[in-house]
Amino acid sequence: MAISVKISKAMEASSWIRKMFEEGAALKKKKGEENVFDFTLGNPITEPPDAFKQRLRELASDKTPGTHAYMPNSGIPWVREKIAAYLSQQTGIDYTANYIVMTVGAAGALNVILKALMDPGDEILTFAPFFVEYRVYADNFNGTLKPVPTDEAFMPDFEALKASVTEKTKALIINSPHNPTGVVYSEETIKTLSETLQQVSQKIGHPIYLISDEPYRKIVFDNATVPYPSVYYKDTILITSHSKDLSLPGERIGYLAIHPKSTDAVALSVATNFTNRILGYVNAPALMQRIVAELQDEPADAVGYQRKRDLLYPALVSYGYECVKPMGAFYLFPKAPGGDDVAFINHLKKFDILAVPGSGFGAPGYFRIAYCVKESIIEKSLSGFKSAIESYS
Amino acid sequence: MAISVKISKAMEASSWIRKMFEEGAALKKKKGEENVFDFTLGNPITEPPDAFKQRLRELASDKTPGTHAYMPNSGIPWVREKIAAYLSQQTGIDYTANYIVMTVGAAGALNVILKALMDPGDEILTFAPFFVEYRVYADNFNGTLKPVPTDEAFMPDFEALKASVTEKTKALIINSPHNPTGVVYSEETIKTLSETLQQVSQKIGHPIYLISDEPYRKIVFDNATVPYPSVYYKDTILITSHSKDLSLPGERIGYLAIHPKSTDAVALSVATNFTNRILGYVNAPALMQRIVAELQDEPADAVGYQRKRDLLYPALVSYGYECVKPMGAFYLFPKAPGGDDVAFINHLKKFDILAVPGSGFGAPGYFRIAYCVKESIIEKSLSGFKSAIESYS
Repeated sequence: MAISVKISKAMEASSWIRKMFEEGAALKKKKGEENVFDFTLGNPITEPPDAFKQRLRELASDKTPGTHAYMPNSGIPWVREKIAAYLSQQTGIDYTANYIVMTVGAAGALNVILKALMDPGDEILTFAPFFVEYRVYADNFNGTLKPVPTDEAFMPDFEALKASVTEKTKALIINSPHNPTGVVYSEETIKTLSETLQQVSQKIGHPIYLISDEPYRKIVFDNATVPYPSVYYKDTILITSHSKDLSLPGERIGYLAIHPKSTDAVALSVATNFTNRILGYVNAPALMQRIVAELQDEPADAVGYQRKRDLLYPALVSYGYECVKPMGAFYLFPKAPGGDDVAFINHLKKFDILAVPGSGFGAPGYFRIAYCVKESIIEKSLSGFKSAIESYS
Repeated sequence: MAISVKISKAMEASSWIRKMFEEGAALKKKKGEENVFDFTLGNPITEPPDAFKQRLRELASDKTPGTHAYMPNSGIPWVREKIAAYLSQQTGIDYTANYIVMTVGAAGALNVILKALMDPGDEILTFAPFFVEYRVYADNFNGTLKPVPTDEAFMPDFEALKASVTEKTKALIINSPHNPTGVVYSEETIKTLSETLQQVSQKIGHPIYLISDEPYRKIVFDNATVPYPSVYYKDTILITSHSKDLSLPGERIGYLAIHPKSTDAVALSVATNFTNRILGYVNAPALMQRIVAELQDEPADAVGYQRKRDLLYPALVSYGYECVKPMGAFYLFPKAPGGDDVAFINHLKKFDILAVPGSGFGAPGYFRIAYCVKESIIEKSLSGFKSAIESYS
């Protein structure tokens, strides 16, 4: 093999995911797209809001020169000023443009901050279950992701967190509202988390940065609120994207915000500008930067997603599925009946239902349902979910 | 310092570049933007062509659902089909969508292919002088860039190339039309290069891939032609972006094309789809993919750039600068009078001229002039270039 041995092995390890997708594609081809209930991808069926479309039309006719040109690697200065002003108003923290880096989505932002923080062998913590890409991103910089257990409600186990910290710990990534469980951390949880991080940071002699990956912030239900971790813990890097709240996953636009009072804040600001360049992102797409700058206040379609949750969640529970009730995002993470997630996923296929095993999220014994699909798909899938659990021993 | 030691050191090493930019910015503030002759950045002043603007307006009003959604990591299938058809028509090689990966610019493409090819300790060759980022990109994957010398005309030294190859050699990056020298490799050069690579590949027992980074392909002068290396050497990865030919550097759109008959072509196709994902690019910006798919035939403003070259090059030579005549791109790479490039760059500043020392390109003793600026800037800079060399001992 002429290609990278490391990449060959990584692809082999993830080949079962590809196999699943291929089987799904084959099933769709056989039965017709509309007759397969595909809950595998967090790819919103929801279209971007009218405000996005209007702004895109305006900018498409804008004749200002230089709008598609290079810019500072951190992004267009006026765009970063707008983002900073929005975050300052939301949090009461004095963000300035200097501490904002526009990025190629939240994925870009995570890589940019991890490259700026990590040396080989460094450790990044996250609570399990976790978004599968975190592991790959830590590995990109020759470090490791160390999952920390949570309780039955997927809430942080603070003693386990303390026990997981070593001198190599550089950061903890949290994600609330959470993929794949849909849980939202309360203010109390964030406060305890903040205190715990302060304690352990002091103990190891350097700060553990809190990377708050929050693309689902605006997608919450039943009037839940999502506290800003940066209000409670100054060594916080806020990361978001507009893939979910504005339904723009294909456009790769997001940002990171460094708390202006965080340790080495200025060095981090310079470093993230630098890593955005050297990782080959160079800068976030210019046109999308200019669009989202004006849409920070735009609400997400939380009502629409709540309706979908309310179609699916009570039905599944009534059929006998055990599941924590999601308060945000657009995922359900039930226990796999029988305990073997891969086996149950294969069983679900018999009912034309596609979902993802929890093993991929560091949580074997569970499976993920991404319900960012049409309501009609959810409705038509219900009898299959019912038959699947009834017929499964 | 809480941030990465490696990144801190890398920033320190490149701090003189930042210092130069800061001094340049200070100079502009003092003298006024129009009175400083800034030749530092390859950021075209040329606007995108009308065909781009029209296509953008059309797509801004397009109501097809799902156009901003996720897609395969390699890009939108129909876009990749269009690119493949264009390349097939240009080269006579049977490219198919499978072998095309849409990327976040050429920078994204280079990182995607290097991640797919490299294991720690691997070596990437390139001819010096070279685009400074190549070194950083090889380092991203724990390998090293090994510069190979060229002759006085910046043409490859094939004996030096042979001598540079080891068992760790994975690829050679070439860039024609070339940044920073503006030279274009002839068909004969590409043929000899191809033969040499075949020989040394055989000797080391695995292929050395030829990564042809060619964003300046359409910017050539005096009816020069740019041969496609893939026609002569099957283990070629073609990489381009639309930063230069369509003047879209801020939008981050480019692609890579794997020769369908290259060694491990299918594995490379799967691997680059995978590395585009795990590097956090996920996919190239969707809207820009859809625009550039229709603009592959669009010419660049080569006539405009040739006019700029013809304003600047003969004048510099008449003042006594020694310089290889550029046949493409938009750079001049003269010898620094006196031999000390950093000293001469500092001397040029006295005449309000900003340029970049050759040291940054692996070629101390030279300096780079990026002449993708207004003609009036070039005209007004000439007396400064003249006085600079006359007053320099």
